[in-house]
Order: sequence, then C-alpha cells, then structure tokens
Amino acid sequence: MSHHPSGPTSPPPTDPPTGGPGNGQLAVVGGGVIGWSVAWRAAVAGWSVTVFDPRPGRGSSWVAGGMLAPLTEGHPGEDALLELGSESLRRWPAFAEQLTAAAGRPCGLSAEGTIVVGWNAGDRAELARTVAYLAGRGRLVTQLDDDELRVLEPGLAPALRSGVSVPQDRSVDNRALLAALRAAADRAGVRTVERAVSDLDDDGVRGADQVVIAAGTGSPTLTGPLRSTGALPIRPVKGEILRLRARPGAVPGPRHTVRALVHGRSVYLVPRSDGLVVGATQHEVGADTTVTVGGVRDLLADATAVLPGLAEFEFAEHAAGLRPMSPDGVPFIGRLDDRVVLATGHGRNGILLAPLTADAVLADLHRSPLAEVAAAAPGRFA
Amino acid sequence: MSHHPSGPTSPPPTDPPTGGPGNGQLAVVGGGVIGWSVAWRAAVAGWSVTVFDPRPGRGSSWVAGGMLAPLTEGHPGEDALLELGSESLRRWPAFAEQLTAAAGRPCGLSAEGTIVVGWNAGDRAELARTVAYLAGRGRLVTQLDDDELRVLEPGLAPALRSGVSVPQDRSVDNRALLAALRAAADRAGVRTVERAVSDLDDDGVRGADQVVIAAGTGSPTLTGPLRSTGALPIRPVKGEILRLRARPGAVPGPRHTVRALVHGRSVYLVPRSDGLVVGATQHEVGADTTVTVGGVRDLLADATAVLPGLAEFEFAEHAAGLRPMSPDGVPFIGRLDDRVVLATGHGRNGILLAPLTADAVLADLHRSPLAEVAAAAPGRFA
Repeated sequence: MSHHPSGPTSPPPTDPPTGGPGNGQLAVVGGGVIGWSVAWRAAVAGWSVTVFDPRPGRGSSWVAGGMLAPLTEGHPGEDALLELGSESLRRWPAFAEQLTAAAGRPCGLSAEGTIVVGWNAGDRAELARTVAYLAGRGRLVTQLDDDELRVLEPGLAPALRSGVSVPQDRSVDNRALLAALRAAADRAGVRTVERAVSDLDDDGVRGADQVVIAAGTGSPTLTGPLRSTGALPIRPVKGEILRLRARPGAVPGPRHTVRALVHGRSVYLVPRSDGLVVGATQHEVGADTTVTVGGVRDLLADATAVLPGLAEFEFAEHAAGLRPMSPDGVPFIGRLDDRVVLATGHGRNGILLAPLTADAVLADLHRSPLAEVAAAAPGRFA
Repeated sequence: MSHHPSGPTSPPPTDPPTGGPGNGQLAVVGGGVIGWSVAWRAAVAGWSVTVFDPRPGRGSSWVAGGMLAPLTEGHPGEDALLELGSESLRRWPAFAEQLTAAAGRPCGLSAEGTIVVGWNAGDRAELARTVAYLAGRGRLVTQLDDDELRVLEPGLAPALRSGVSVPQDRSVDNRALLAALRAAADRAGVRTVERAVSDLDDDGVRGADQVVIAAGTGSPTLTGPLRSTGALPIRPVKGEILRLRARPGAVPGPRHTVRALVHGRSVYLVPRSDGLVVGATQHEVGADTTVTVGGVRDLLADATAVLPGLAEFEFAEHAAGLRPMSPDGVPFIGRLDDRVVLATGHGRNGILLAPLTADAVLADLHRSPLAEVAAAAPGRFA
C-alpha cells in the first residue's frame, strides 16, 4: 500500500492566556526559540517583556534541523521525553497558526511526515526495535515495502528496499520560525537588549518582577549554585549540521524528512524550501563549536549514500551548535524560586518542545503549574 | 634510505630590469598573482602602472593550492608545460627573495618537497608511469619504501606502504603571496582601481601606452575577436578546494605537500602554517563557482583515507575557483599587437608560472621577447 501520511490530530486553537496589561516586568534571558516563544506569549498575556541575548536568534536555534519528531527521536527507556514531545507536537498546529497570524508571516511548519530507513541488516534490526517500542506505546508507524518507499521518496538509493513511515512527525524551518517569533514578539511590544547577562544581579534583570531563564548551555552560570541541587546539571553536546542547496539540473531533494542509520551512524535530512539540512553529529567536547573534518565527511558520505542525487547539490553551509543536555534528556521547565522560572536544558528537542514550554512557563508565571510538564521539574535531581 | 629533499639549484638573484622613470603608462587588467607580479616588476622597471580588478586578489589566486609542482603536475605528452614549469620554478627562489625584501613581509615559500602515494595497485601503477616519464626527462624522483615514507610523513595511513619523493617541487602560501605582491606593488607606486574593465576602449585603459591582459577566464571578453585566431581559446575549469585547520589535540598535519591517487581520483594536501589546503576537483561546467556536495565529499574521504588524523581538524573553508585553461594547458604569454601583451590562460599553474611570466612580460614590454616562453606564443592556434 502506498499512502500519504495524515496529519496529527490537532486540538482546536486555544487563545493565548490574556492577563491584561499590568502583570508586571518580565525579563527573559536567552533569545532562542524557547526564549522568544515565552516572550511573545507573555507579552500577549500582558507582561512587559524584555529579552536579553548578545546575539538573538543566533545560538543553537539557528543551527537546528527543526525536526518535530518525538516518535523518530523516541528510544526505549525515554518514556518521559516521548510523552513531553507528543504533548508538544499536539500543540504545534495551533501554535503555528497563532504565530503566523501574529507575525504576519509563515513560520515554516511542514505538513510532511518522516521516512526512516536502515542501510544494512544491522541498521534495520536496530530500527525494528524502535518501531516495536513505538507501536507498543500506541504510536502510528507503518512498514513500507520497496514500491511504497519509492513512491514516497523516489530519490532514495536503489539498495534501500524497505523503510518505515512515521506520518505524525513533522518539521519546521528553524530560521523561518525564528523570524516569525521575533516579528510576533516585536509586534506584541517585547523589548530586545542585545547583550550578555552573566548573573541575575545584572542591572537590567534586577528590576524585573519575574525572570525566565532560557539561556541554553549558558543557564548554569546564570542560576549559580542552587540551594537544592548544586549547579544546574546542563552540559553542552555539540551537533554539526550542513545545509545543502538545490542547483539547476540537480534531481529534487526529499519531500519528507528522511532519517537513516548507516553502519550504525544516524543521519537526518530535513527539507527546506531551497534544499535541505543534514545533521547531526553528537560530540561531548565542552563548549566547542568547531566543525570537524570527520563530522562533515561522515554526514556527506551518509547523506549521499541514502540520496545519491544530493551529490549535485551545492554545499552551502556548515555549522555547529551546542545542545543544552540534561542528565535524563528531559528539560528543566518550572519555577526555581519566587522570582525565577526555568525553561532550559531542552537538548535536541528545543524546537519541538517550544509550544508546550511556552504554555507551561505562562502557567507558572500565573502560579498554576501545568501538570503535563511534571517530568521536567527543576528539582528532580535534588 | 631516508633522506630530506634537497632544494632546487637556484640561480643567483638577478636584479629586476630597471628602465628608469618614464617608460610610460602601463595598464594591467587583472589583479591576481600574474597581474600583481607583472605590475610590481614593471613599476620597479620605471613604468607608471595601474591595475584594474573589481576584487583584487580574490579570484582564482585566492582559491589556489599554491603548489609549485611542475614535476608532480607533469604528465606524458605535456613536455612544453613541464619545461615552462621547470624554468619558472628555477626562478622562484630569487623571485621570492626579491619579493620578500620589496614587500617587507614573507611571501610564504616553503622549503619542503612533495610526497606522492597511490592508494591501491592501480593507482600505484599509474604513478609509476609518471615517475618513469619524469626520470626519463632527467628529473629527480626517488622511490620510498615503507620506513622511508613514515620517517618523512608519520601521519600517512598504515595501508600506504610505499611512495615517491619529488624533492624539487615546492609550495607557496597563495594568500601570503598575494599580500606580499600587493605590498610590494603598493611600495613601488602601483595604482589599483577596483572596478571591472570590460573592453580595451575602457576610459581607464585607453590612455595607457601599453596594456597587459592578465584577467584569467575574463581574458577572452577583453581581447574580443582576434585578427588571427578568433576568440582567445580560454575556458573555465572549476576547481573546488577546502581549507582544514589544526585543532588543539589533533595530530600534526603533513610537513610536505602530499599528492595521492585514491581509486583513480587525484587529491593534494598542501601545508599551511595553521593547517592545510586540500584540492582539487576538476569540472568543466562553465563559469560556475558553486561548491558541490560530491566534490567536498570526495576530497574529505580521500584526504582522510591518506592522512587519517585529519578527521580531527577543523573544516574551516570551502571554495571554488575558475582555472583559465588553454587547449594545450600552456598559457598565452607574449605580444598580441603593438599595444597589448597577453599573460593569461595559466590553467592550474598560474602561481608556479608567475616569475617566468613576469620576466617574459617585462621583456616583451621592452621589445626583446624571452625565448624560454616560445611555447606560450599567443598566435600558436592561428
């Protein structure tokens, strides 16, 4: 059977919470997708919001692949993350609709799902374990035979004879999203201060009634030693990504997000309007954003093994970002003390988790925490 | 036997020809290595020189690997090019010495020779043919066994068990060279006009007593239809190169230029003070400087096959340049008419051939053509 993936079941758009003007001064430290999402929603809800970031929108959100993929990122043993991701994905269509209207420009959400393939028998066996895990949790994953696979993605290498369709996973153009968030925030009256904030005694932050920390790998420095847990346990995990651009005469790029295991190495290919993003390596090497020869070599070799026509694309950009990773892969979302709310440590899933995180932070600001993010409680390692 | 390559026999530095002030107005169209070499030497010789280039020093000279390699670029059937290259290499040490003094800064000439390796039996057989050709023409090429190879370049892949030393080939840091040429030219009073010249009726060029065309792939447009030969037969051949940068903790890069054949594909690795240049693909695709996915993939795969430690280097830069290629690979150096001298069409060998080309053009300007460049006569396809 050949089929087109159907969209996820989307709840009706809910209006953002409105508290009216006069909720007070809110400082958001960090101008990535999480920080901007919170800032926009808080400003709409009546907060007077200032975002602090030395280079707004140019951190790991800028480098991201933009997969909204709780399912294809799902791994046995990471149930809490799967549930958080599924909950946030459910909120994405309404979030995108409101954002597009508020920004007056598209936010880059794609309607296409994900295709997963394995290069050799070992790779396919590993994928089968993930598929079984997801199916066991009631998720929609569909085995594809050779014909079905080629109907969905004609450019796949002939050696790939089977695959898996994950129709509910989505992707978003991370840079279109950043531009839309910035535009919506600007329209809602958010102020942006382009400088680094190194601690919460900072002149600009000290006067705020509430502070949201959404500073990714910079968050532990900001929070300092916590009463209960010592330093916030977030470490940088480097990810290298490439951007490939279609050229006249080259075969079309993929229409779906394509994820592959190639000799045990994971590669993803996420479509963009002018080409695609290829990612992503994972290196635990501290705060190092150097793109390595070995990283680029492996990404290109694996990407062109899976989709040979990409060899004729333009090699347009290489970059590395730092994922803010927690010990269990689950972010820290929730109140730290009377004045400070955390929205950080999202690891690989910051863009996926943005709608849920923004909703949860707004709920925290209004002192009614969201039960859906209980697994992301800041104090869970105390 | 392990040995260090000895330097080429260098003639004593000759003083540049000095014609004294008042030789007249000289327009040089093209600010690459050839154009700047001619401009500097002509200004020293008393010409009042103006260089025209919309982006001086940013054409194919900027992208080049900088090999001074008439021998390792030598191929059976290209005798004329081998002789031109050998003659120019003989002039390089004195040229570099004069340039360094004139510029007040080093011009990036390396004292190390070249190591050549073949990945598999077929690659080694192909190299053996070139070695036999060069030895037959009296050039110094030395077979290296496993031990000798590893003493010279410890980072070579263990699978490489033999190689060839070409001690007389050299390399130069093309960007240090461009900076030195520019500095020397400035000090000698050369004027630079940063704009494109599209024909010789150009306002800036029309008043010059003599004109040198050193505009690479832009040269045919400038010369228009030639009385004798139709258009100047120069076509662009795209070359993609990468720059890799050493990182703390990475093994050292190569000390020599390393050339390899890997499954029939040619790759070269040219040391720089902070890393190396890896090149170069060859594509006959017109005036297209897009860097392709397949090009980068192959260069990285081949470079890290030969020197595995490069995987930990930084992937610093990718670029493509357009080699101005003539039908026989030999440039066009010499007088076109009473007012115009050609110094173009150098293909892969512009940097190697710069000293000889500058000497020959100066000789042409003074109406005493150099016999050594007879093979590069502009009218040879008439």
